[in-house]
Amino acid sequence: MIGADTPLTTGQYLLVYNVMSLTIAAMGAAGIFFLFARNFIAPKYHLALYFSTLVCWIAAYHYFRIFLSWQDAYAVGTGDQAGLYLPSGKLFNDAYRYADWLLTVPLLLAELVLVLGLARAITHNLIFKLVTAAILMLVLGYPGEVSTDNATRWLWGTLSTIPFVYILYVLWVELTKALERQPERVKLLTRNMRLLLLGSWGFYPIAYLLPTLGLGEAIGIVGLQVGYSLADILAKPIFGFLLYAIAREKTLADNPKFDEEGLAAVARG
Amino acid sequence: MIGADTPLTTGQYLLVYNVMSLTIAAMGAAGIFFLFARNFIAPKYHLALYFSTLVCWIAAYHYFRIFLSWQDAYAVGTGDQAGLYLPSGKLFNDAYRYADWLLTVPLLLAELVLVLGLARAITHNLIFKLVTAAILMLVLGYPGEVSTDNATRWLWGTLSTIPFVYILYVLWVELTKALERQPERVKLLTRNMRLLLLGSWGFYPIAYLLPTLGLGEAIGIVGLQVGYSLADILAKPIFGFLLYAIAREKTLADNPKFDEEGLAAVARG
Repeated sequence: MIGADTPLTTGQYLLVYNVMSLTIAAMGAAGIFFLFARNFIAPKYHLALYFSTLVCWIAAYHYFRIFLSWQDAYAVGTGDQAGLYLPSGKLFNDAYRYADWLLTVPLLLAELVLVLGLARAITHNLIFKLVTAAILMLVLGYPGEVSTDNATRWLWGTLSTIPFVYILYVLWVELTKALERQPERVKLLTRNMRLLLLGSWGFYPIAYLLPTLGLGEAIGIVGLQVGYSLADILAKPIFGFLLYAIAREKTLADNPKFDEEGLAAVARG
Repeated sequence: MIGADTPLTTGQYLLVYNVMSLTIAAMGAAGIFFLFARNFIAPKYHLALYFSTLVCWIAAYHYFRIFLSWQDAYAVGTGDQAGLYLPSGKLFNDAYRYADWLLTVPLLLAELVLVLGLARAITHNLIFKLVTAAILMLVLGYPGEVSTDNATRWLWGTLSTIPFVYILYVLWVELTKALERQPERVKLLTRNMRLLLLGSWGFYPIAYLLPTLGLGEAIGIVGLQVGYSLADILAKPIFGFLLYAIAREKTLADNPKFDEEGLAAVARG
């Protein structure tokens, strides 16, 4: 959503402000964690962790921009509007989120496949399908997101759903086939990871359609911003952490002595 | 193109704004990625990856400047021009792009040669020719870019094309000879890399001549900025990624056990 046109109470304004700042810190710290965590997993899964770091840092950058835009978009009210935050006339641009997703969603999908350590041809094939569909989904969503016209919003939203459904198909049908020979615990973690992805992503289309439902008020704006931020924390740091758990599981399945050999070497180095 | 003299709609203004911010994030993240990715390739190709990182970070810096200049060049309209972004009177300077290219184009051409791991004398010879021609091409293009006179634009544009054609000659004729003894897969990736370079570079002369074609309107400005940004994402991060794929391929061709030996050493280090 673009534009800030409703006065907010100080509490409402501050809630969004603080949640955005929290998100910046969470993303920055998670990105550092995935670099550290690399030492606990076999090198063949390191690329997935590097992608997690990039995803979190790209998100930290965009939340920093959204945060500054939020600050600019409101001004403290005076006189009989003291205690309120009024639209300053400057645009609140959270289309930054689209820029973020265009970069992070392909990386998230790629790391989901990479961490499974499948054969090279299968890996490339799955990544190609998922990334292409993700870019299509986001590019088709953007014209609706920046439009204030409900019909336009629904039209592009619907078009954007087609590649989204295709992504679900690839993750649930094709990926399941590729998982057949994986250890039980990896299968379970992958199922959880997929559900987390669906659960956190499921929030975005709801938020996308909120403005068309006649909820233009302060509560709607605050709910949207807080909701998007929490969904992003689930979809990036928490998702990345589950992915780390899978990589750790596979590391120990491949080499049960990894901790004695690998970690001892890290400690020596 | 320099100067902002046409009102834009909010959607047009924001599209450029968001694409520029996206480009900053893409360049910054890609620069970090190439540092991480170093671990997966043999040390003799590391220099090419360092160049990729420099190229992306130099571009991130310049996009940050272009982004600020874009912000300054427009002001929100009021009264009956509400909803429009009007030229603020401040210059929109995207000649920053020339500063960027003067640094990044020689680096891109050098890394293209470096990653092939040819004999030292051939490497130096190819890099010298390509870099000299690239600098000539850019220096000759600049007077036309900052001119508003069509005849001047065409004159310098034509002069600048001579070293450009020479670069194509070196890449297609001389480099092909040097590639004869490379593995098939490296040849294929190099062909793709060369085509990507031609495809993304091909956009620049078109954009350069757009202002002479009588398309001075908003659509022209927006198309130019979005097009240049996407071309830069292709020519820098995506090009760098293909280059990483070549280096990876050559690493495994030189030493099929690199992952067991090399990556284990990285984990120890």
